[in-house]
Amino acid sequence: MTADGSSGVAATGTYAVAALVERFGGACGGDLRRRVAGFAPLESATVEQLAFVTAARYRGAVAASAASAVLVTAQDAGLLADEAHRLWVCDDPYLHFARIAQFFDANAHPDEPSGIAASAIVAAGARIDASATVGPQAVIGAHASIGARVRIGSGTQVGAGSTVGEATRLHAGVVVYAGCTIGARCIVHSGAVIGADGFGFAKDGPCWVKIPQVGGVVIGNDVEIGANTTIDRGALGDTRIGDGVKLDNQIQVGHNVQVGEDTIMAAFVGIAGSAIIGRRCQIGGAARIMGHVTIADDVVISTQTFVSRSIGKPGQYTGYYPMAEHAAFEKSAAVLRRLDGLRERVRRLESAMRVAGDATADRPPDPTVPERPA
Amino acid sequence: MTADGSSGVAATGTYAVAALVERFGGACGGDLRRRVAGFAPLESATVEQLAFVTAARYRGAVAASAASAVLVTAQDAGLLADEAHRLWVCDDPYLHFARIAQFFDANAHPDEPSGIAASAIVAAGARIDASATVGPQAVIGAHASIGARVRIGSGTQVGAGSTVGEATRLHAGVVVYAGCTIGARCIVHSGAVIGADGFGFAKDGPCWVKIPQVGGVVIGNDVEIGANTTIDRGALGDTRIGDGVKLDNQIQVGHNVQVGEDTIMAAFVGIAGSAIIGRRCQIGGAARIMGHVTIADDVVISTQTFVSRSIGKPGQYTGYYPMAEHAAFEKSAAVLRRLDGLRERVRRLESAMRVAGDATADRPPDPTVPERPA
Amino acid sequence: MTADGSSGVAATGTYAVAALVERFGGACGGDLRRRVAGFAPLESATVEQLAFVTAARYRGAVAASAASAVLVTAQDAGLLADEAHRLWVCDDPYLHFARIAQFFDANAHPDEPSGIAASAIVAAGARIDASATVGPQAVIGAHASIGARVRIGSGTQVGAGSTVGEATRLHAGVVVYAGCTIGARCIVHSGAVIGADGFGFAKDGPCWVKIPQVGGVVIGNDVEIGANTTIDRGALGDTRIGDGVKLDNQIQVGHNVQVGEDTIMAAFVGIAGSAIIGRRCQIGGAARIMGHVTIADDVVISTQTFVSRSIGKPGQYTGYYPMAEHAAFEKSAAVLRRLDGLRERVRRLESAMRVAGDATADRPPDPTVPERPA
Repeated sequence: MTADGSSGVAATGTYAVAALVERFGGACGGDLRRRVAGFAPLESATVEQLAFVTAARYRGAVAASAASAVLVTAQDAGLLADEAHRLWVCDDPYLHFARIAQFFDANAHPDEPSGIAASAIVAAGARIDASATVGPQAVIGAHASIGARVRIGSGTQVGAGSTVGEATRLHAGVVVYAGCTIGARCIVHSGAVIGADGFGFAKDGPCWVKIPQVGGVVIGNDVEIGANTTIDRGALGDTRIGDGVKLDNQIQVGHNVQVGEDTIMAAFVGIAGSAIIGRRCQIGGAARIMGHVTIADDVVISTQTFVSRSIGKPGQYTGYYPMAEHAAFEKSAAVLRRLDGLRERVRRLESAMRVAGDATADRPPDPTVPERPA
Repeated sequence: MTADGSSGVAATGTYAVAALVERFGGACGGDLRRRVAGFAPLESATVEQLAFVTAARYRGAVAASAASAVLVTAQDAGLLADEAHRLWVCDDPYLHFARIAQFFDANAHPDEPSGIAASAIVAAGARIDASATVGPQAVIGAHASIGARVRIGSGTQVGAGSTVGEATRLHAGVVVYAGCTIGARCIVHSGAVIGADGFGFAKDGPCWVKIPQVGGVVIGNDVEIGANTTIDRGALGDTRIGDGVKLDNQIQVGHNVQVGEDTIMAAFVGIAGSAIIGRRCQIGGAARIMGHVTIADDVVISTQTFVSRSIGKPGQYTGYYPMAEHAAFEKSAAVLRRLDGLRERVRRLESAMRVAGDATADRPPDPTVPERPA
Repeated sequence: MTADGSSGVAATGTYAVAALVERFGGACGGDLRRRVAGFAPLESATVEQLAFVTAARYRGAVAASAASAVLVTAQDAGLLADEAHRLWVCDDPYLHFARIAQFFDANAHPDEPSGIAASAIVAAGARIDASATVGPQAVIGAHASIGARVRIGSGTQVGAGSTVGEATRLHAGVVVYAGCTIGARCIVHSGAVIGADGFGFAKDGPCWVKIPQVGGVVIGNDVEIGANTTIDRGALGDTRIGDGVKLDNQIQVGHNVQVGEDTIMAAFVGIAGSAIIGRRCQIGGAARIMGHVTIADDVVISTQTFVSRSIGKPGQYTGYYPMAEHAAFEKSAAVLRRLDGLRERVRRLESAMRVAGDATADRPPDPTVPERPA
């Protein structure tokens, strides 16, 4: 149990607020000698913990909180003057929180095991840096290369000839096939599968003939890959994931896909083969990208949306059926099934109106009305 | 091979119908000394097997079946008088089937291995109850706690400090990260990942800065978790799954989500971070719940529906695009893309009608017509 | 690194074009003594590699390519006369590519390990053919049967009594539960779970009572199963996957489902319990099939489509919300939510028109208009 009542990984050690402010910047009120041990939500934080707010509407929660210090913007601090003795003013409280929490986290695991576990199997010709950790029951294939300070979790499989860059962490139960490259400082969560065959078949009458998938997977630096996410190897060339990409759980990336730097995707996103995704895109959960399309930089795709064509310019693109109470859904769906028929009825009415009376046909267009569909 | 021709797990031993009726209740016709070895579908059951029907329209199938006894309601029994010698009348045949089948199943696996396999790795400080089973190649982390009669499958990983409650079964190839708690009598299927990092990042220009996920996962009692389902750990507090929750395969539960007791979810459901799901909800396959929303108790969500806002009262909520033959879909989709334009054309027609003739404008509303949209 | 610049699995050895033409058929121009080492995309192929084109519009790319030979149809060859010295004319270039690439691939892995790894655990009574390979840390359960030339990947679990047919490959980290049957020449990718419990519960007040899942899974010959795909065991009978079926990654197949021969499914498809899918169907990514429905042979389901009823005849069926720019989506979605209201307004207009003027009501129907909805 940690101090905030969670059963999670506990931060160890405490730090004076003064030391944290000096390291991370900003300005904090009150006695800077007080010590803190980590972050907690505003409502459960103790006097030994930090919290943050991202909007002044949380004013009541700040007043009620026991937190030792609360990260706020200068603007919000002005609205929270009563709390000045524990406000820590900074440019971006959420980003500040991320950086300080990383600092606590990095110091929270002092006694993790290191070295190669006796039960791990390392094949001939594999190169494992002396500073790397390989967990129990892990398997490192022939001629694989494991960099400095890499941590390979228990039961994880690294295929023959694959490369894992420095300070990357593969959690327990990851599978990396042969011939894949993972960059530095990546995090790969359990159940992720990197380099399984892409899905490619030629038709021979009713049968499907497998296209051998002989390309690889190349993952850049600072990439995070969620639990049970799958990234297929290329058919001939490679599947490529750019630096800084963040993939949530249960994502599927097809063969020969390219994902640009700093793009982020939520759970269940599916990218079909040979799609090219730009940089800094944000792709909502369960969105699907059709094969062979190209998506520009800085595109935002809403959750559940099926991207059936290329997108050439930044912006947000959306397509999901809006939820309703079931009875209302049933009524709308019944009309939707014959929507072209409804449009036709409107066309007939328009024709009939023109026949019935010219007085109405000559009215000027209503300027508030959007452009009329063809 | 079992007697019903399936290649599955066979039930062993037979029981007199009299003994089963005494144990589980209801009233069965015919000679109660006949013995049965388990259940089968009505159409393939042998004279040594039980079956069940949930509607009298299966009358012909009952007549054609060789089943030794057939569970029915009293009402259906009245319609099946010719079969009275083998009808087992009970309140709820499906529930009765479940309970009796559990009884057979519990007695079907007498010779499973027990104890800690020689190839399992148990870290220092882990506590494993003497009645627990740990399979080959499993890994139990430091200070983990494994309760009485727990069964840990082969190749399963339990992280440091995690707790598994009594009589819970983790099948082969499960991963539980450090600092997670699983209650009693749970079943966790292969490939499930409990406690991977939630998906949380702060933006720093184009880059994403990881928020350390230091909360845990707390799973109640009598929970079932399907194959390849992922439940992320909390960011600061815990992700919580209530007692009696049933999760199908390939579900994703985001960080800090709370799921109420006895809620059930079908495959591919995705719950984004910090959503709160009520008790006794039923969530259809591939439905998605947006982050931070709250869903009341007893809500039913249809398959594929995207829940984009909180739901405050029980009922069924739905939103999926209705399937059609492809050509019909194409026509409807083309109109849907410009649906606001169609509405505008209707508005203009209405205006024109009012100008053209007051006789029609004064007609009383049609009482069969639903309330007109604003 | 392979010659085409990918980091993937390299093909070893070279072959004279003459030998390949003799083995696979067709007619190739130029000096048939030149040697090739495998395939590459047209744009990156070297003089030691083959390529293929499937349409004459790639004419410029063929001219610019360094490929030693390019597979083309006779028709396209006529349009590419300048390149005749390196065109390899055949009936179906893509199928030819598949077969020749398989030949290269089969000869590319001469030195894979064989036999049973010392760290693998084989339970009593398991039968493993002398020509089979079992990787490090794999676990083979009691009375399992592993056929000739089977390859079991590292860390893979095969449950008690399960059968794996000859020449089948289970990649690393696969889980096969007890009592499952996998045919010959199958490929199962990492993270796939075969035979986990189907999702079946009886309701007892607010609680869910588990139905033991005592059926098995029976997978035919020549089946490919993608990474992290799950196929549940039957409740009483078996779940059955026909010969030649190809399943992409992250698919879910529910209990008692039957999938007909040569059907192919893309990633994230979900098939709910007891559905029956015909032969030679093609099911697009993230499509969902409702439980207990039947789908005829030769049906095509578009991506994201929810199949909520049985389909009795071949054809393509579709239902997904069309993507738009977000602002346009918002407008259409707002109308869609009250679509039945819009239809009602059209009905009223039609009634009003009939009252207002019989001249228009008597116009003959427009023959270009589809049948009017009821």
